[in-house]
Amino acid sequence: MRKRVEAEALQKLATDLLVAAGVPHEDAQITAWALVLADLRGVESHGVARLGNYYVDRVRAGVINPRPNVRTVHEGPSVIVLDADNGLGQPVAYRAMERCIAKAKEAGVACVAVRNSNHFGAAGVYAMQALQHDMIGLALTNSQPLVIPTYGRKRILGTNPIAFAAPAGKERAFVLDMATSVVPIGKVEVWRRRGELVPLGWGADAEGLPTTSPEAIIRGGGLFPLGGAAETAGYKGYGLAAMVDILCGVLSGAAFLTGVLPPSTTQERPSDVGHFLAALDIGAFRPIDEFKQDMDRFIRELKESPKAAGQERIFIAGEKEFEAEEERRRHGIPLDSKVEEELKRLCQELAVPWPF
Amino acid sequence: MRKRVEAEALQKLATDLLVAAGVPHEDAQITAWALVLADLRGVESHGVARLGNYYVDRVRAGVINPRPNVRTVHEGPSVIVLDADNGLGQPVAYRAMERCIAKAKEAGVACVAVRNSNHFGAAGVYAMQALQHDMIGLALTNSQPLVIPTYGRKRILGTNPIAFAAPAGKERAFVLDMATSVVPIGKVEVWRRRGELVPLGWGADAEGLPTTSPEAIIRGGGLFPLGGAAETAGYKGYGLAAMVDILCGVLSGAAFLTGVLPPSTTQERPSDVGHFLAALDIGAFRPIDEFKQDMDRFIRELKESPKAAGQERIFIAGEKEFEAEEERRRHGIPLDSKVEEELKRLCQELAVPWPF
Repeated sequence: MRKRVEAEALQKLATDLLVAAGVPHEDAQITAWALVLADLRGVESHGVARLGNYYVDRVRAGVINPRPNVRTVHEGPSVIVLDADNGLGQPVAYRAMERCIAKAKEAGVACVAVRNSNHFGAAGVYAMQALQHDMIGLALTNSQPLVIPTYGRKRILGTNPIAFAAPAGKERAFVLDMATSVVPIGKVEVWRRRGELVPLGWGADAEGLPTTSPEAIIRGGGLFPLGGAAETAGYKGYGLAAMVDILCGVLSGAAFLTGVLPPSTTQERPSDVGHFLAALDIGAFRPIDEFKQDMDRFIRELKESPKAAGQERIFIAGEKEFEAEEERRRHGIPLDSKVEEELKRLCQELAVPWPF
Repeated sequence: MRKRVEAEALQKLATDLLVAAGVPHEDAQITAWALVLADLRGVESHGVARLGNYYVDRVRAGVINPRPNVRTVHEGPSVIVLDADNGLGQPVAYRAMERCIAKAKEAGVACVAVRNSNHFGAAGVYAMQALQHDMIGLALTNSQPLVIPTYGRKRILGTNPIAFAAPAGKERAFVLDMATSVVPIGKVEVWRRRGELVPLGWGADAEGLPTTSPEAIIRGGGLFPLGGAAETAGYKGYGLAAMVDILCGVLSGAAFLTGVLPPSTTQERPSDVGHFLAALDIGAFRPIDEFKQDMDRFIRELKESPKAAGQERIFIAGEKEFEAEEERRRHGIPLDSKVEEELKRLCQELAVPWPF
């Protein structure tokens, strides 16, 4: 049994730690909100588990700018380009999406491209900002190279996620939040720790050939893009990962491919991560009530569709995460002992009292 | 050796056949252009092979409206919604993309959603319209149900393609044009005719379980979404297929899921296909020369990356198609004997002289 803690208290702790590291209070709050929302939704790989390594330690090492001067590079009727000044990814992405939504309210659709940013956590939380405005949200980011292109053998693409959120009526919103690799590297690491072989198609060895050895994927190999090897259309996942990098990296003027540095406390220059956000105002396309009714029909037709042998349920993108969130808001967020240890380390280093 | 014909002559034949079937000359020209461009690019499944079954026969059967009154349902600064009046998909999509590009020139980015349309051929040709305007183009469409959702066993989603085109400088443009299923149903049919088993992960049998039998996939089974079974993240491809249907079907007010009727001459109501097109004016984000230089660097870094054992080349999305186009513009488009037979049938039925 893992210890459970209240979301609000965890969010306050994360905020306090970021503030103690030198991050302004509002930026710290937004960052903590994004991390804890990921934990609530069961996306623990993008939650407070990373608070130390990805954010606090790097702010303290001077690798991330805690007080960035975010600059609007271009602004048009439906486009904004921001330079994040090497700040934390979460506050710039959150505020960029708010501006994107305001612009979409006027123009019908709007996009924001962000350069010179950092890892922003789970893409889904920004796409979901659109929901309460009766809009469709899209959030993409590039990331450190972990994925090999089809017929290659070097990690050159990020796991470059695509997040897409669309509201429904009586049903829960549709929230897709997916890396464009088959699996995240963390999942391969979990199987390695368990001493198990992974399914064929998750990754390649140092020769670029499909392997079931998690060790081979981690040491010298890399992740396959969605689809796996070429035979099962891995070139499509490769194409999607490249598309995300073109929008986030090339279009924004950020780094791309191996130019995006992995989060570390010793990196010699900023990571220069790029994001791409979009909002579509549904009311500019059709009456919102009709849209939501159709979304309900869409979701129900999928869910009520006949099941495969041995299966009892067809899921909608985001459904498991909404259920996790409901459960965790009621019963608390489970804290892994390793994560607890890590948070205690940060508390000690930054003289923040441990609240749990 | 297959007979080769000149693209221009093939396009004229397709135009003449469509005109003879009652399609206005300009609409026929656009439709023929889209089909022959697919043939030039080696995407023969979306070329003149379908001229009879998908278009001419259905116009003649009164199932597609040859002279639609395309109506602008909504128009805003960066959004247009069109009702295609059950016309051919190609002319409405082509003109919609032209309007989208004009709007993006003003607003920076623009979208067009189309309802009440029909099969529009290869999505890539519309995304590529953006290239000559130094824009990024996006073209999506929903389509007849052939794909089963993760944990399901019924064909409920279309192969719902994503096409994305971005210009480069000295390098060729990046043109992704991919169905969100692992493979198209036509590929499974080809393997069945050859009497071969297909790779595991392409599709499921009538129970929704992975199978290598093309027969089982075709009779009662269905295609897997990109990623294959759940173990290899097929739920991501399922999520992408659903995303495309939300944008093309739900947002436009068209049919979605099993509401999209397969192309046939005997269907009782219009197919009500929906499309979603977008254009992003690169100059609204950053200087176009900088963008193109970075695209060249992006493409070269991918191509020059180390190769997997046994491989000599890493491809960029669209590269094979550009090479096919160059070769076919020089030496002609190979005509399959079955396709030739089919075109001759149309010529005979419509009293159009056979030109080859």
